[in-house]
Amino acid sequence: MDNSRRENSAEHSWHLAVMALTLGDYAEAGTDLTRVVKMVLVHDIVEIDAGDTFAYDAQGYTDKEEREQRAAARIFGLLPDDIRDELLSLWHEFEAIITPEARFANALDRLEPLLGIYATGGGSWQKPGVTLAKIQKRMEPIAAVSPALGDYVQQIIADSVSKGYIRE
Amino acid sequence: MDNSRRENSAEHSWHLAVMALTLGDYAEAGTDLTRVVKMVLVHDIVEIDAGDTFAYDAQGYTDKEEREQRAAARIFGLLPDDIRDELLSLWHEFEAIITPEARFANALDRLEPLLGIYATGGGSWQKPGVTLAKIQKRMEPIAAVSPALGDYVQQIIADSVSKGYIRE
Repeated sequence: MDNSRRENSAEHSWHLAVMALTLGDYAEAGTDLTRVVKMVLVHDIVEIDAGDTFAYDAQGYTDKEEREQRAAARIFGLLPDDIRDELLSLWHEFEAIITPEARFANALDRLEPLLGIYATGGGSWQKPGVTLAKIQKRMEPIAAVSPALGDYVQQIIADSVSKGYIRE
Repeated sequence: MDNSRRENSAEHSWHLAVMALTLGDYAEAGTDLTRVVKMVLVHDIVEIDAGDTFAYDAQGYTDKEEREQRAAARIFGLLPDDIRDELLSLWHEFEAIITPEARFANALDRLEPLLGIYATGGGSWQKPGVTLAKIQKRMEPIAAVSPALGDYVQQIIADSVSKGYIRE
């Protein structure tokens, strides 16, 4: 978090896992936090083959799914069948964002970069095409899972606008 | 793993957690892998305050425990009481290396750097004071948990000696 480089997927995934261990009170009732931890540990592993697609890159998103499906088949396919099936299934569940576990994992996946970007003065919010409206839209799933976390996000966004980290 | 820098604690902890998800068949019967995952996610978090002590640094080890106990009290103490108690207890369990979960976590904590150092041509084995005998001693707990993983470690060590990564 010293702005010398971007956070990598291993660091990001570790952060999400620790957030799942510590912010579980903000998950919807009945969320199985153990499955959330497993899910976030492998949620970005497809980036080994498919690369990282910047959250606000509309063009990159056009073939993101196809690239990632191919990567998931190859990478999880290296594992013994039972473990492959479990982790591939968790990855599909994360991508679908339907179950409470996937919804919480998805909320953490949006909250963690927000905290990192805020802590480092708004770095990647300065890229072309990133606007307050797009950031707000990206953060919507957090409030849907937890109004309290959603309020916290709004405080950070308001402060980021006032500090010039985010363009209105 | 390109030798440009050392692996950091977040990357190392993520690696251990993924190894716990994928190498569970090598754990002792009855090992609760969910507790192993949680344990490895927080096992090195004390390094935020206490710093990293190099595995073969005898002098650094003289005050390692005191530094880390102080760090654990402060860092886990930032959390709500119930989560603090759970994670601090897991950290103490990891340090004591008595339960099957801690023994497996400890084995992974020794195996993962071995793989990294081997994959990058033996970097930190070249430091003064690191010998084959010390490396063998450090790897002993792996074979104690899993003879199969222990055999794998011996193959890597033999190949590392033949390639000159380890001094005999």
